[in-house]
Amino acid sequence: MKRQNLRTLALIICTLSYLLIGAGVFDALESKQEKTQKGKLDYRKFLLMHKYNLTRLDFDQIEKVVLLLKPHKAGVQWRFAGSFYFSLTVITTIGYGHAAPSTDAGKAFCMGYALLGIPLTLVMFQSLGERINTFVRFLLHKAKKCMGLRRPEVSMANMVIIGFFSCVSTLCVGAAAFSHYEGWSFFHAFYYCFITLTTIGFGDYVALQKDNALQNDPHYVAFSFVYILMGLTVIGAFLNLVVLRFMTMNTQDERRDAAQRALLSKDQQIGSVLRRPDPPSPAAAGRDKRRGLKSVYAEVLHFQTVCSCLWYKSREKMVILPQDMSFTDALMEQSDFFEPGPTGCVCNPQRCSAISTVSADLRNISPFRLFSKRRSSV
Amino acid sequence: MKRQNLRTLALIICTLSYLLIGAGVFDALESKQEKTQKGKLDYRKFLLMHKYNLTRLDFDQIEKVVLLLKPHKAGVQWRFAGSFYFSLTVITTIGYGHAAPSTDAGKAFCMGYALLGIPLTLVMFQSLGERINTFVRFLLHKAKKCMGLRRPEVSMANMVIIGFFSCVSTLCVGAAAFSHYEGWSFFHAFYYCFITLTTIGFGDYVALQKDNALQNDPHYVAFSFVYILMGLTVIGAFLNLVVLRFMTMNTQDERRDAAQRALLSKDQQIGSVLRRPDPPSPAAAGRDKRRGLKSVYAEVLHFQTVCSCLWYKSREKMVILPQDMSFTDALMEQSDFFEPGPTGCVCNPQRCSAISTVSADLRNISPFRLFSKRRSSV
Repeated sequence: MKRQNLRTLALIICTLSYLLIGAGVFDALESKQEKTQKGKLDYRKFLLMHKYNLTRLDFDQIEKVVLLLKPHKAGVQWRFAGSFYFSLTVITTIGYGHAAPSTDAGKAFCMGYALLGIPLTLVMFQSLGERINTFVRFLLHKAKKCMGLRRPEVSMANMVIIGFFSCVSTLCVGAAAFSHYEGWSFFHAFYYCFITLTTIGFGDYVALQKDNALQNDPHYVAFSFVYILMGLTVIGAFLNLVVLRFMTMNTQDERRDAAQRALLSKDQQIGSVLRRPDPPSPAAAGRDKRRGLKSVYAEVLHFQTVCSCLWYKSREKMVILPQDMSFTDALMEQSDFFEPGPTGCVCNPQRCSAISTVSADLRNISPFRLFSKRRSSV
Repeated sequence: MKRQNLRTLALIICTLSYLLIGAGVFDALESKQEKTQKGKLDYRKFLLMHKYNLTRLDFDQIEKVVLLLKPHKAGVQWRFAGSFYFSLTVITTIGYGHAAPSTDAGKAFCMGYALLGIPLTLVMFQSLGERINTFVRFLLHKAKKCMGLRRPEVSMANMVIIGFFSCVSTLCVGAAAFSHYEGWSFFHAFYYCFITLTTIGFGDYVALQKDNALQNDPHYVAFSFVYILMGLTVIGAFLNLVVLRFMTMNTQDERRDAAQRALLSKDQQIGSVLRRPDPPSPAAAGRDKRRGLKSVYAEVLHFQTVCSCLWYKSREKMVILPQDMSFTDALMEQSDFFEPGPTGCVCNPQRCSAISTVSADLRNISPFRLFSKRRSSV
């Protein structure tokens, strides 16, 4: 089975298993508490109905009004500040649901707004996250050089550790702030920040819903918005560093497979072009050009494959090219494939021909042996 | 300013502007309705308090019980089916909030569960989405060939149209089903499917919350779970096709810039290696090897840049390499850069030297002129 299909199947099985495990654990943790809580609440309801002489119908009437009044209880939700807060929860897909459009026009606009806004926001956070990672990498490299470390290169492990601690710090700062402003415990405020910045957004804890804060406390409103945006940036940077590469794995592999198929199917054209001794006629030259161009395209794709593989290998070996081109010894030891020819250049006709005139079993060609290993990060 | 920085800045400005526009429109659409609704509900509350002779304190007591009873009213939430539903909303980040962990242990486990589950799910949906896109591309290519079309290649436009209509169909099928099961209007059910499959998940409309469906209607429960997973797959496939490339733009550009910097800074090493007539001493050979390897690495990176650029250009010109290597005429016309040398190979020492010994103004080198244009899809 193709690697990509196997990988996809494995991921599906893992995810479904993960769901089943989660279901079991949540059942064990919450089911008993739910039953107990329901029993207590039903009894309280019974006492209240008895105390105020309410029938079931009466209680249902009051219940309906209470539930409809819930968002209003938290303050005005749809003035500019509240609408900005709502728009933020839409395009970031947090979606607390503390407020939701009640008009059909609002619902329709919400869908159109999300349709454009969500991809825009995804790309923005990834873009900004990548910039932040590059800057942090640059700073860390400079810091390592200043400290006179023997190997000043910035490794993936360095970046992951910094990213992780940035995320945890962001959550802690938010937890401290919101526990102060909202009167939540630190743990509950941390839980709120986590649920927000992962964009799950249950809505069980929502900031800016006490004492009409959206209208009365502009500083806290501004802090909340800035916190959410910056927090999502930090999380986005971490995702860009760690997760994004895995999201493009299948596409990379598909590209590589296509290049290999192209080389295998077009080795004959290369062979015929190589064997041709005399200058061709114009018609034949046109046909040869077409075949030659196809072969050339296949070779370019192959170089891309080879180069991509080298890039990933070099990144795994901790070479993130800084301005002054420091290399790890490991990479240099590995690069024996790239023996410069007499002109000092890696490319020469013999190597091109060797790569192009491949046999069906690619492993017999030594360059392919080097690059047919799977990238160790995948 | 660097291209990546400019792009990121533009995206930030766009997103903030988009938020402001959204805030203004939602304010205009919902603010008046909110005011009207609050007025009506306050009046109904006043009437009820008067009717049942309830003080403000009494009403607050009843209100508290009603709000706590709300999730229980929708049925048992934490048995296995309900917990599975909840786990699904966590790892997909839908996060309706119809149920949320009430115990601290549940909250803590929820965070840990999301920490691993969300990246796993992201990668799984992208992987599966890519496989689906590849399969659809294959099918469409076969269909075009069967129909005897002159140009059977599958274009990006074809894929986007198919993807878009798949998404709309998925939403319509869901809307029809949930409007039947839940008693919602088609529009409200469509809105629910949209908010679910974009993972916003307000929680204003939540399936499986009527008549204790989670316990009593296993077929509907299974349908809902399958619909959410398949719907997210279809959306994920569309995102993989359209959005994912934009999320890696900065990384691609950074790679290209690094390659160009490497070439510029190491042209001297190539020059010195080219000029060396005699076999070097072992010490000098080691130094030359190091410099030569660095130059070779820089050249490989350059080829990767060139190859990546060609790949993207070819993709824009609608060449998705099918098994039989069909090419567009446009690509072949464009590929005049790749004049095969006398051996039929694109690589020859003269071209390598020409690329390597770059002047400070890259535009004077004709290969760079071709590839310094921005990809038109970015």
